[in-house]
Amino acid sequence: MRTALCDAFGIDHPIFAFTPSEHVAAAVSRAGGLGVLGCVRFNDTDELDRVLTWMDDNTDGRPYGVDVVMPMKIPTEGTSADLSSYIPEEHRRFVDETLLELGVPPLPEGEGREGVLGWLHSVARSHVDVALQHRPVLIANALGSPPVDVIEQCHEAGLKVAALAGAPKHALSHVANGVDIIIAQGYEAGGHTGEIASMVLTPDIVDAVGPDVPVLGAGGIGSGRQIAASLALGAQGVWTGSIWLGTEEYRNLAGNKGWETAFLRATSSDTVRTRIYTGKPARLLKTKWTEAWSEEGAPAPLPMPLQNLLVADAHNRINASGDPDVISMPVGQIVGRMNEVRPVAEVIGELVAEFEATVKKLDGIAGI
Amino acid sequence: MRTALCDAFGIDHPIFAFTPSEHVAAAVSRAGGLGVLGCVRFNDTDELDRVLTWMDDNTDGRPYGVDVVMPMKIPTEGTSADLSSYIPEEHRRFVDETLLELGVPPLPEGEGREGVLGWLHSVARSHVDVALQHRPVLIANALGSPPVDVIEQCHEAGLKVAALAGAPKHALSHVANGVDIIIAQGYEAGGHTGEIASMVLTPDIVDAVGPDVPVLGAGGIGSGRQIAASLALGAQGVWTGSIWLGTEEYRNLAGNKGWETAFLRATSSDTVRTRIYTGKPARLLKTKWTEAWSEEGAPAPLPMPLQNLLVADAHNRINASGDPDVISMPVGQIVGRMNEVRPVAEVIGELVAEFEATVKKLDGIAGI
Repeated sequence: MRTALCDAFGIDHPIFAFTPSEHVAAAVSRAGGLGVLGCVRFNDTDELDRVLTWMDDNTDGRPYGVDVVMPMKIPTEGTSADLSSYIPEEHRRFVDETLLELGVPPLPEGEGREGVLGWLHSVARSHVDVALQHRPVLIANALGSPPVDVIEQCHEAGLKVAALAGAPKHALSHVANGVDIIIAQGYEAGGHTGEIASMVLTPDIVDAVGPDVPVLGAGGIGSGRQIAASLALGAQGVWTGSIWLGTEEYRNLAGNKGWETAFLRATSSDTVRTRIYTGKPARLLKTKWTEAWSEEGAPAPLPMPLQNLLVADAHNRINASGDPDVISMPVGQIVGRMNEVRPVAEVIGELVAEFEATVKKLDGIAGI
Repeated sequence: MRTALCDAFGIDHPIFAFTPSEHVAAAVSRAGGLGVLGCVRFNDTDELDRVLTWMDDNTDGRPYGVDVVMPMKIPTEGTSADLSSYIPEEHRRFVDETLLELGVPPLPEGEGREGVLGWLHSVARSHVDVALQHRPVLIANALGSPPVDVIEQCHEAGLKVAALAGAPKHALSHVANGVDIIIAQGYEAGGHTGEIASMVLTPDIVDAVGPDVPVLGAGGIGSGRQIAASLALGAQGVWTGSIWLGTEEYRNLAGNKGWETAFLRATSSDTVRTRIYTGKPARLLKTKWTEAWSEEGAPAPLPMPLQNLLVADAHNRINASGDPDVISMPVGQIVGRMNEVRPVAEVIGELVAEFEATVKKLDGIAGI
């Protein structure tokens, strides 16, 4: 499975794997894909620095990428405490009462209550600065174009810049800003996502940006058949995320209690697209927590970055409790396909083999 | 482009075309696909009888199908007048006021005001009875499994029965009821649709029903690349709808005023999934009419079949006015790709050619 992106990055398969786990990212890169480490969870840049040093040392010299969350325009900024003053009392009360109803205990005394600061612009910028002291080949931004000076900073350091787009007009805007690679993020994807499904979005973006801009298909990719479909639609590679939650390497990530149980039993109907995670629409596993926010009387989610600050403590409590009925976790519709936990290398091997078998089957249909 | 379905039906390409226009359906069948005539618009069974006679005479002996709208369980039934008494005054007032605000004039004196009765169970049954006096090879049901006695009636007459499914569990239930072919209707499709996108739904249903039950991919299919993607996902053919609205043959259907203008300018972002058309979630073109129903203070849509009775008169008025900003019309997200009006045979030819080119491109990527 070779496209021009394989040569551009020196990888064997055009399979890009977004993951918050350095263990998964490194294993993907070692297996011939491109592991992309999500940085949003690193409040402490020193920790990110240590983790990227580990990546440098554990990828057998293969390339890897990093993913930041950075709006192009500088949004509401300030410390966690400053911003918290904007959160209405009604919202705090709803969160407290919901956690009580769902039986989620308070955190043990002394455990951290800080929100995820990676959503803040200044923190995301520091992630880029730290990353550039290591050897990533790609910086991807989950919120579209990064600021133009960040794109230039990356280009000067020899990195490619990728950005997620949920509509052709956003893709065109990213290209105009200097972004090199568009990630066409379909409706079925986990995390932040728009309303256009991959089957329509991928070819629309491919046609909009033209042949000189590589497009990665994202959303709904968890098998070799789905990779073949995405490449048929014109993508030069695929951007995957959810599938890596079902790997042995992911178990190394702290706070994984309950997730596996929830993923393994979920069907493709068990996700919901909602603003409750960050303030922008994102697809999450459907649990009692997400359902509570859609009941009558629930408050409307707050804008980014306030919503994440509002629910950060709740997420910590939910993760600590490990109740699979309540967890709050981004995942795509392919969660229905995640039915066993396997090593990353085995998953990659199966994706590639099924892709090849699918192309042979299509040859038969086409009479080639 | 040959799959087992081509042999089963005696068609050249596994392209199934749902359309309310007998001119489109016949042209698709003549071009080697399978035209499927939507019957829901026929309140008068004699008219359906005449149209199917026309189909018999204008398909060069090629096979065709019919599509009915029939819930498996018998729903609220009765005459249009009986049922109307269940419609709340608030809803009638909202419709009247909205039409006034949108500048949609009343119907000219004497023009028909009857709703679309095809949503009623008894009417759908009469459609089946009429169809069986002609020579369709397939009966498809937009609402899932038809009643078991209808399936038996069709099988005795030598017809195959197809049913739409928006989730694997529905597909399994259809198969248990005796349905022969599953139409995997993805989120991006026009008309009635569920929440799972085609990229995930098609392989999920293919895997659920197993290799003996043919699956048609539906939703997001408007190009040869999309056909290749759907067949890569395991479908044995595709079920298309929206794309035929942009054909010369479709212009023969009465009441087409304004639609073409609206379709040709729409992007893939210009649709909405809503219950306002029939009471069940269906994807429509986003217009001032659909937007009015999502504004604050708008009433919640009524259940099927009341919602359609409520808006039937409004649809007649909107169609008669022909204002492209206001039309109420089911269409899928591929509407963004419908940028010119062409003859059906040309569209089929392009679908097949692009499918073949796409498979050759995948061969290059796979190194075959």
